[in-house]
Amino acid sequence: MTPAFEKLQQHLKQLPGVGYRSAERIALNLLVEKPGRLPALVAALQEAAQAVRRCSRCGNLAEGELCAICADERRATGTVCVVEHVPDLVALERSGAFRGGYHVLHGKLSPIQGVGPEDLNIGALQARIAAGEVRELILALSNDVEGEATCHFLTEHLAAPAAVKVTRIGFGLPSGGGVLYADSVTLKSALEGRRDYS
Amino acid sequence: MTPAFEKLQQHLKQLPGVGYRSAERIALNLLVEKPGRLPALVAALQEAAQAVRRCSRCGNLAEGELCAICADERRATGTVCVVEHVPDLVALERSGAFRGGYHVLHGKLSPIQGVGPEDLNIGALQARIAAGEVRELILALSNDVEGEATCHFLTEHLAAPAAVKVTRIGFGLPSGGGVLYADSVTLKSALEGRRDYS
Repeated sequence: MTPAFEKLQQHLKQLPGVGYRSAERIALNLLVEKPGRLPALVAALQEAAQAVRRCSRCGNLAEGELCAICADERRATGTVCVVEHVPDLVALERSGAFRGGYHVLHGKLSPIQGVGPEDLNIGALQARIAAGEVRELILALSNDVEGEATCHFLTEHLAAPAAVKVTRIGFGLPSGGGVLYADSVTLKSALEGRRDYS
Repeated sequence: MTPAFEKLQQHLKQLPGVGYRSAERIALNLLVEKPGRLPALVAALQEAAQAVRRCSRCGNLAEGELCAICADERRATGTVCVVEHVPDLVALERSGAFRGGYHVLHGKLSPIQGVGPEDLNIGALQARIAAGEVRELILALSNDVEGEATCHFLTEHLAAPAAVKVTRIGFGLPSGGGVLYADSVTLKSALEGRRDYS
């Protein structure tokens, strides 16, 4: 294979779920079998990179100031589900078990990996609570050490008035697994089985 | 998800081996988790699309006039292996079982799909034979109806001098597989391709 081909293969191999053979197959497909698709793919990548940003309120993917969920009046129920990453939000949306709002932290506290509270999207959550927007906060973080630490930090440091109920997603989530890999039924029972955390 | 995100997901889903979920995961990875990788991937795609072309002699991937195999004097053995697609060539190279030259047809004859001889890279093969470059032609085409038809067409229409030996790659049981697990067509070709053992 040629140098430019191998370089492309290396880049494709870094994508999640794409190994050496898949990368070769995709590169051959784009360069030999269906070369007409390559410019369209490049355009879609560039367009998405330019258009997609973080929702200023919740941190979800957005193309304007607010994401589709924050812009939807019917979902301003006062119940806000706190997740680690956007894929977690996608998994919850797919389950159809939750119709409130979200808040994406974009990570969890991890002193070992040098992730502190200032690296997470916590300030915007504090602002939403201060604005009286939140009645219940559902902590849908994974139940590993970092997830526990993040839940603990949020309940300790968020200046939530007593009127804000803090719950934690719980039953049905397999130990050691995150929201991303759970099936819809498990996510539904986890939401229904949430318990007081504070 | 946003419109630009979904458009990117649709384009990713068209890649071989990438389904709906994988496309979502790759798009999230490129836009949220590792946004720094996206420009490098776009650059590699564009560079490869620009740099990679067909070898003018054999039809393999090349960055100059000739591919690495045609440019290698040691591989000009006079034995030319005819394959349907570049991935076939890659598979043969990976096996290390062949050290001659190749000729990539970029398809096989298929009247039903409207693929005629003029759509295949046959003219260049004729030119190589006319130039006295070929002593043996190994037809490594698949043994389906279209592969058979293509082999037949090549032996009938290539104005090969009698000095050019035309062979066809052997069909039979795959290595490691027994009679028990082989399908009927494979067993039929394995019986037809039997050789003296004594």
